[in-house]
Amino acid sequence: MARQERATRTRQAILVAAGEVFDEVGYEAATISEILKRSGVTKGALYFHFSSKEELAQNVLGEQVRALPEVPERDLVLQKSLDESLLLAYLLQREGGDAIVRGSVRLTVDQGAPADRLDRLSPMQGWVERNVSMLEKAKAAGELLPHVDLAAAARLLVGAFTGVQVLSNIMTGRSDMPERVIDLYRHLLPSIAVPGVLVQLDFRPERGAQVYAAAMELRGGGEYAATD
Amino acid sequence: MARQERATRTRQAILVAAGEVFDEVGYEAATISEILKRSGVTKGALYFHFSSKEELAQNVLGEQVRALPEVPERDLVLQKSLDESLLLAYLLQREGGDAIVRGSVRLTVDQGAPADRLDRLSPMQGWVERNVSMLEKAKAAGELLPHVDLAAAARLLVGAFTGVQVLSNIMTGRSDMPERVIDLYRHLLPSIAVPGVLVQLDFRPERGAQVYAAAMELRGGGEYAATD
Repeated sequence: MARQERATRTRQAILVAAGEVFDEVGYEAATISEILKRSGVTKGALYFHFSSKEELAQNVLGEQVRALPEVPERDLVLQKSLDESLLLAYLLQREGGDAIVRGSVRLTVDQGAPADRLDRLSPMQGWVERNVSMLEKAKAAGELLPHVDLAAAARLLVGAFTGVQVLSNIMTGRSDMPERVIDLYRHLLPSIAVPGVLVQLDFRPERGAQVYAAAMELRGGGEYAATD
Repeated sequence: MARQERATRTRQAILVAAGEVFDEVGYEAATISEILKRSGVTKGALYFHFSSKEELAQNVLGEQVRALPEVPERDLVLQKSLDESLLLAYLLQREGGDAIVRGSVRLTVDQGAPADRLDRLSPMQGWVERNVSMLEKAKAAGELLPHVDLAAAARLLVGAFTGVQVLSNIMTGRSDMPERVIDLYRHLLPSIAVPGVLVQLDFRPERGAQVYAAAMELRGGGEYAATD
């Protein structure tokens, strides 16, 4: 068991280093040697887990949806959804955020070369499906207006969040992300949620850090607990 | 005058070729020799207009907001804004669109290397300012709800459009862009516009092609007329 735990930690250290490098320079310019240097693992250990830069990138991409820690249940499904977006905004920040999430989002949003064969579709579909299932729960709980097209609303939430993130990165290095995510939800939710739900939602941008702390507690402490 | 017209056409041909190459492979992987080949101009002519790949990219970026043709006036300011977004969606499509717009949008959205010194902020600020001034006109015309924060709404329109474009590109190669832009406006405008305006808006996705034709007619025919 100790050996398996060590292997899991090594794998995680490599993915974190890869996330950092992909976030900073993008897929094309990233090198295995830089990822090695940052991770502090041996070349043999890296190639034991990942055979190429492409496989590393694909694994960072694959972690994207999964890397979002579980958020505590809320009375309202839509509050949980807003909290997840604020948590994602928090994880995308350069200070104290999550390198795998940052690297993975950049790998998805950068268009890349046609020849790089990276699968950007699966993570996006993952986000859309996650939002569809959230909206289905919200509908069952009576939180949605009757006419809402769940697939269209889910795609829009994912697309709009993606762009808000891009714009915030260009304009402020993501320092205004919590406020911009709140703007997004304040403008979209009136077309989706019933008024009785709207007036109960907590839109304070500082929720991101609180949700992160609560999610970490739920996970049982350490940052890597979920991967053990 | 003939010489100046020739120079203008040469410059435009280079920018179109550069837009194509930046769109297809991104800034890092683009080469001057490929841009030369596509544009069909001589090396001397290219370097007469642009001294480096960086200068080429910066000029493609600089054309971004300007490359959107003027849309005919509408009775409603918000209809004109929707039409401009549908036109932009039309120009972003690979078939029949505008290579400078596509290349420029990719240069903006791709994060690039910290060392590439490309100015991604100015085009984004250009879009935000354009939307602020559109919303000011809409407010003066009585089309907006009284509580709307113009700066927040403008930033959100730009950010959300950016992401809807990224998602549509990943999921459908931009073929569903008109529908996704309509989804965006259908969900956002109820938080911005008065109901009397909402019921007058034409949300048909096929407006994009019609608006393009009308804009070209307004421009007086040829595609390069505006640059003469």
